[in-house]
Amino acid sequence: MENLENSTDCKETVSPLNNSGSTVNSTVSGYDGKAMGFVLVHAGAGYHSESKAKEYKHVCKRACQRAVDRLRAGGLALEAVTAALMELEDSPFTNAGTGSNLNLSGEIECDASIMDGKSLNYGAVGALSGIKNPVLVARRLLSETQKGKLSAGRIPPCFLVGKGAEQWAISHGIPACPTEKMTTKFSLSGYKRNKRKMELAEQVETKRKRQLCGHENDFGCLEPVGDILVAGEENNSACLDTVGVVVVDREGNVAAAVSSGGLAMKHPGRVGQAAHYGCGCWAENARDVSLYSTAVSTSGSGEHLIRTMLARECSTAMQAENTHQALLEAMQNKFISSPFLAGEDCVLGGVIVLRCCTCGEAQRSEDIQALLVEFLWSHTTESMCVGYMSAQDSKARVCRCWWFTYCICALSSSRSETASEA
Amino acid sequence: MENLENSTDCKETVSPLNNSGSTVNSTVSGYDGKAMGFVLVHAGAGYHSESKAKEYKHVCKRACQRAVDRLRAGGLALEAVTAALMELEDSPFTNAGTGSNLNLSGEIECDASIMDGKSLNYGAVGALSGIKNPVLVARRLLSETQKGKLSAGRIPPCFLVGKGAEQWAISHGIPACPTEKMTTKFSLSGYKRNKRKMELAEQVETKRKRQLCGHENDFGCLEPVGDILVAGEENNSACLDTVGVVVVDREGNVAAAVSSGGLAMKHPGRVGQAAHYGCGCWAENARDVSLYSTAVSTSGSGEHLIRTMLARECSTAMQAENTHQALLEAMQNKFISSPFLAGEDCVLGGVIVLRCCTCGEAQRSEDIQALLVEFLWSHTTESMCVGYMSAQDSKARVCRCWWFTYCICALSSSRSETASEA
Repeated sequence: MENLENSTDCKETVSPLNNSGSTVNSTVSGYDGKAMGFVLVHAGAGYHSESKAKEYKHVCKRACQRAVDRLRAGGLALEAVTAALMELEDSPFTNAGTGSNLNLSGEIECDASIMDGKSLNYGAVGALSGIKNPVLVARRLLSETQKGKLSAGRIPPCFLVGKGAEQWAISHGIPACPTEKMTTKFSLSGYKRNKRKMELAEQVETKRKRQLCGHENDFGCLEPVGDILVAGEENNSACLDTVGVVVVDREGNVAAAVSSGGLAMKHPGRVGQAAHYGCGCWAENARDVSLYSTAVSTSGSGEHLIRTMLARECSTAMQAENTHQALLEAMQNKFISSPFLAGEDCVLGGVIVLRCCTCGEAQRSEDIQALLVEFLWSHTTESMCVGYMSAQDSKARVCRCWWFTYCICALSSSRSETASEA
Repeated sequence: MENLENSTDCKETVSPLNNSGSTVNSTVSGYDGKAMGFVLVHAGAGYHSESKAKEYKHVCKRACQRAVDRLRAGGLALEAVTAALMELEDSPFTNAGTGSNLNLSGEIECDASIMDGKSLNYGAVGALSGIKNPVLVARRLLSETQKGKLSAGRIPPCFLVGKGAEQWAISHGIPACPTEKMTTKFSLSGYKRNKRKMELAEQVETKRKRQLCGHENDFGCLEPVGDILVAGEENNSACLDTVGVVVVDREGNVAAAVSSGGLAMKHPGRVGQAAHYGCGCWAENARDVSLYSTAVSTSGSGEHLIRTMLARECSTAMQAENTHQALLEAMQNKFISSPFLAGEDCVLGGVIVLRCCTCGEAQRSEDIQALLVEFLWSHTTESMCVGYMSAQDSKARVCRCWWFTYCICALSSSRSETASEA
């Protein structure tokens, strides 16, 4: 099954305000009646050309498979989420790890973070160069945090950036990787193209300013040129395609991760939402006041996602009864119309969301577990590529969504009934 | 008036759970009946020795004066908050800017951020070396964000780190400053002392591990030595003293800022709460759903303040009717007992909080403005040094609080009445 159109129940509607969203309810039970978990991945919200979309679908499938392999082997959410994200980072087509966008200086600087819903621990790296899998460093930071204090009572760091992060990674056994190995033909040609566009835009701007000084308000002929350049760059929102993963394991633990090469032609040292707590990813197991476990991963314009703390906002919204309505409202009120983005003319972003709770049977017996998993996505960008897979499935499902698409997809009810009876 | 004991109304109570808190209600009206604003600063939550406390009081007074000078000259909150924070950074006694803690490599790496309650814009720098006033870079990032997109439609960064941040600052006219000039005799001697402690602690740990391998569970004699070292380092929480400022201006706009040299002996590249959105500072003008404008600045263990997003949590709490109760509850439920810090044995932090709303007269006439300003602080550390000043005051008030102190201080009622009638 390659896309939602092939799923057992799929509806599409058009909304003038709310971009793309998808809700899937799945009762996940594993082999021998045990819940085994579920994974949802994204290869970014942006613009995906036909040629790239095919590659994205492939890598999303592979990433799902990696996570499910770990889940089937008894791995927990944190392990599965890392495995899937590494697969996404390793693809030369995604803007994360290998193939990341180059910055203004022609270098790769990556952001990544990971959160464990069980311990609520978190690890992140920002503007990291020279490491093939940034998420591995974030994961290691999280693990080290869980070991307690360092020598002389020092608190272990949860967020490292730049050269220091690279040194820390290497000293913790994560091998260095030369930037040249992470640079692809695609990222290099994109850099050269963007550089030319920037230079041209700056020339136009300089000329306009000069004309403005000489002949006030007499710059009409130049304005359209500038606008075309700007619009051209904005439409090329492939540069936004951060990758992310959310997972729930057989024990009902959730985890989330995100990784990004950041905006193309960003200033060196710029850190986006992928390294920012509450903005790039969020995972929180059910507890006291929260009925549901939730996991979220975001993609899009880092600055917009930071200022709206979109990952955490979506997680909070997922405690509502109607997940689909709650996500649409969160995207509308906490992102598109957010007072934190007032004045922004183009709010670009997307989220994947997973929430789950244990079903009736599970509450009565530890041996018989069933998890009700709901997963959704929403984006304001032209398209978003997602993949998902339950540990029971033989293969992953992938989907590339376009503007104003709204889908509901329910996995076969017979499976849900089986799971409920398990 | 040097401390709260000298204020017109001051009560102290002891709470077994809730550290230190202070509430001051002040109706602020300016010359010619115009509201002029108010500033509250802190020189960190930590342990302040008698010798350092005197210096802290002095610098807090000077910082308040700087802010008030700007407010009286017609400056807005953002300008005043920057001026006060620069004064705090310039003090060789605070752990920010000049005199910052040195990291593991003996270098200074600073974090700072600033938020404007009016535009909700934000700027931050992390692990920044070679710039005398990190808050100036954060402020400049915020200003550049407000100018709109860069050439070719690129979104301007709101958060820069490391070498890239330093380069950006210099290219935007902020002068470089050699690290040697920012290193003080005090920070250097602290570094040497801490390094010795760390080496000793690591030797003890190595010896303990060796003994553990040879004679399982036979390491009793070494444990106390290790514990003493750890406790000794923790008690030296002077290393936590991040500085911060919150301001409300004559128009009722709020702004907040924070700056820190980070934990002593931190790993290079470690970024703490002072650079983290929602964690180091928060400022939000009143709007629609929020009756009050709020501004918050935090201090303490960066990792704890990040994971609890304490600045934003305290800001949200300040919409409650009873500010004092709301802050105590926020500190208890969102910090000390936070599920995000479960397992942490020593949760160290402090906040300064300001909230304000316009009084009756102001709603009827733009010429007659009066602001009701409430300000509070709370901390779990041994002490916290704060200073505050209204634009009407002839000099700042400063206060060093200790464990389990709770103060209420009201400025003279005659002034409040005058303001209300203004």
